Amino acid sequence: MSARGSAFVPHDLAAPIPGAAQGPLAGLTCAIKDMYAIAGERTGAGNPEWLATHPRETSTAPSVQKLLDAGATVIGKTVCDEFFFSVTGANAHYGTPINPRAPGRLPGGSSSGSASATAAGACDFALGSDTGGSVRIPASLCGLYGLRPTLGRVDLAGAMAMAPSFDTGGWFACGPGLMRKVGAVLLLGAGERVRINRLLVAADSFAQADPEAAAAGERVLRRAVQVLPAPERVAISPEGFDAWRQCFRAIQGREIWEIYGAWIQENRPGLGPGVRERIDYAATVTAEEAASARRIQAEARARVRGLVEPGTILALPTAPSIAPTIAVSQAALDHFRARVMALTCVAGLSGLPQITLPAGTVDGCPVGLSFIAWEGGDEALLDLAVTLAPYCGQ
Amino acid sequence: MSARGSAFVPHDLAAPIPGAAQGPLAGLTCAIKDMYAIAGERTGAGNPEWLATHPRETSTAPSVQKLLDAGATVIGKTVCDEFFFSVTGANAHYGTPINPRAPGRLPGGSSSGSASATAAGACDFALGSDTGGSVRIPASLCGLYGLRPTLGRVDLAGAMAMAPSFDTGGWFACGPGLMRKVGAVLLLGAGERVRINRLLVAADSFAQADPEAAAAGERVLRRAVQVLPAPERVAISPEGFDAWRQCFRAIQGREIWEIYGAWIQENRPGLGPGVRERIDYAATVTAEEAASARRIQAEARARVRGLVEPGTILALPTAPSIAPTIAVSQAALDHFRARVMALTCVAGLSGLPQITLPAGTVDGCPVGLSFIAWEGGDEALLDLAVTLAPYCGQ
Repeated sequence: MSARGSAFVPHDLAAPIPGAAQGPLAGLTCAIKDMYAIAGERTGAGNPEWLATHPRETSTAPSVQKLLDAGATVIGKTVCDEFFFSVTGANAHYGTPINPRAPGRLPGGSSSGSASATAAGACDFALGSDTGGSVRIPASLCGLYGLRPTLGRVDLAGAMAMAPSFDTGGWFACGPGLMRKVGAVLLLGAGERVRINRLLVAADSFAQADPEAAAAGERVLRRAVQVLPAPERVAISPEGFDAWRQCFRAIQGREIWEIYGAWIQENRPGLGPGVRERIDYAATVTAEEAASARRIQAEARARVRGLVEPGTILALPTAPSIAPTIAVSQAALDHFRARVMALTCVAGLSGLPQITLPAGTVDGCPVGLSFIAWEGGDEALLDLAVTLAPYCGQ
Repeated sequence: MSARGSAFVPHDLAAPIPGAAQGPLAGLTCAIKDMYAIAGERTGAGNPEWLATHPRETSTAPSVQKLLDAGATVIGKTVCDEFFFSVTGANAHYGTPINPRAPGRLPGGSSSGSASATAAGACDFALGSDTGGSVRIPASLCGLYGLRPTLGRVDLAGAMAMAPSFDTGGWFACGPGLMRKVGAVLLLGAGERVRINRLLVAADSFAQADPEAAAAGERVLRRAVQVLPAPERVAISPEGFDAWRQCFRAIQGREIWEIYGAWIQENRPGLGPGVRERIDYAATVTAEEAASARRIQAEARARVRGLVEPGTILALPTAPSIAPTIAVSQAALDHFRARVMALTCVAGLSGLPQITLPAGTVDGCPVGLSFIAWEGGDEALLDLAVTLAPYCGQ
């Protein structure tokens, strides 16, 4: 374990990498998920055998370089779930980063250490990534702001892939303005800047969450009634979320195996509980199953994009519950994961941006409230977070 | 109660006050303790009768204006303890702002709403004030960074006074770099920039805290051993803290009565439990008692300043415990307050700067670790927070 605390990897930086003296993030500090290349450092993907079999990086990922050029100092590399393939934050090799806002509970993953470090005040913000919920879920469980951007709007060059159909870069912060400032540095292109004029509330997504977690989100919507359009309740997946969740899983499995299968077969790495089983499943997804899943994805994508036109935002719970306890059984974690995916697959399948806000607490533990926007609506979501912030978290 | 949640006063801003488009705090949001004047708004000091008997402000306090000029948007005015005269955060008129990091417990005060809003993610940072611990204590109890600056280094023009011998402006943030950026805007003068080369650990202050709270702070010191000078344990008040605490209380009481006594006698405002008793005590402090207390203060000040020479920092617990529960008795609160003052009077009596860092949690609730520096050592403390951040909070 790193002396710096379990949010950081044992192969952490020897010293902080100073950012530029001037720039919009000058004087701020950040931490980087151990999937982004940093020149001279090794990238571990949460797995010690991957780390041991790969050389030091020769260049720094452009998104990390952007943060440095904007003035942020990189203080460390953070622990993540193995091959980014979970939403729990449990890591059998490096230990599970603590959840500073709910000690004794999981931090969420796979960007677990980035969320843990930010929530602990170890840094001002942190870079993660989100394929199936890997920013949104730890942000919700650790009481942070987190953005899954529109697919393609954060440069993932120099970052390890997970499932490229869904992979996005994302980040965490404690405050809404800082969240937005990081976006201004990281987001590619100008976005699609349309004024928010319609609020849909995903009734079927709220029904997936524990009543208390759903109620915390609904309370924010009620408190903020003066600054939001009138809510319209909709069902976003009239046939239920099972087919969506399963098609996400199949495509994700197919893609991760295409990327890491050969290395895994050759190196037979030790894999933690649950990760081994999901990798084994990934190896079994056939091309036909993946093709069938892509047809379902196309339907889901059309459905969600049809609802979330430019100017419309869609509210839903980020996670189904507060963080599970660290001691929870694998069966309970599998159940948690399945419930999570029913919520997170909506933005994942449609490639749309989703922001999570710290809605409040249930039994003393954080829960998030999310909004999905149109393609390129990232800036609108970041502005929305600033507007809604005074109504959150209390 | 304000619809925006109990961190904000009912007479809150009708709309945010936008900051300058450019500047070191551009894009960030802040909240302001309801003791700083904002042009066109009324200042309430936590007491509805004060509010009702005073006109709208005609100008904005220079420290608030500095934040606006640096780019920060002011999103609201925050609840505080009546006449800033407590460290608990309980307010009988407006309700007690919640502690987002320890729901069901007090947020600490008197800058209670500023801490609550920052910890909730309602804003990026918040302005408070610290006379007897009013930034340090809520920062510790809400898991935030907080600075009590060197006496006189934050402009208090346009801010209501409490006890001018001890009054300082201070602020809260979740992250260390942001904490420092706000300091660069607010602090007057250049400070006394000396490299930290000696670390004293106030053994008698650590002995004042609950063992678990003390241990959380000691753990940070141990983890951060590579970036700190070797610790030297010292006793800072060989005769014990009772005389120091009592002289602080007498001077504070004398000064608050000089400022507010006439208005209180004329208006006979409703005062919450505990506040009434302390105001009544303040009225009884004689000039002789105050003079005697100032002699003890001079001794304490010489003692502490003799220890904390430029380059030397002094570590101590910020608060004696985690936050008391909201339902705690007045007697228990009085005991908590007395224990707090034994810790906070050290910087108060000596006029030296003190920073508190989020050290970690005890029973799931935050506790802080503090460092006192030399006069003008504010910047050194803010830099120290950035250096120590990765070792904190976990």
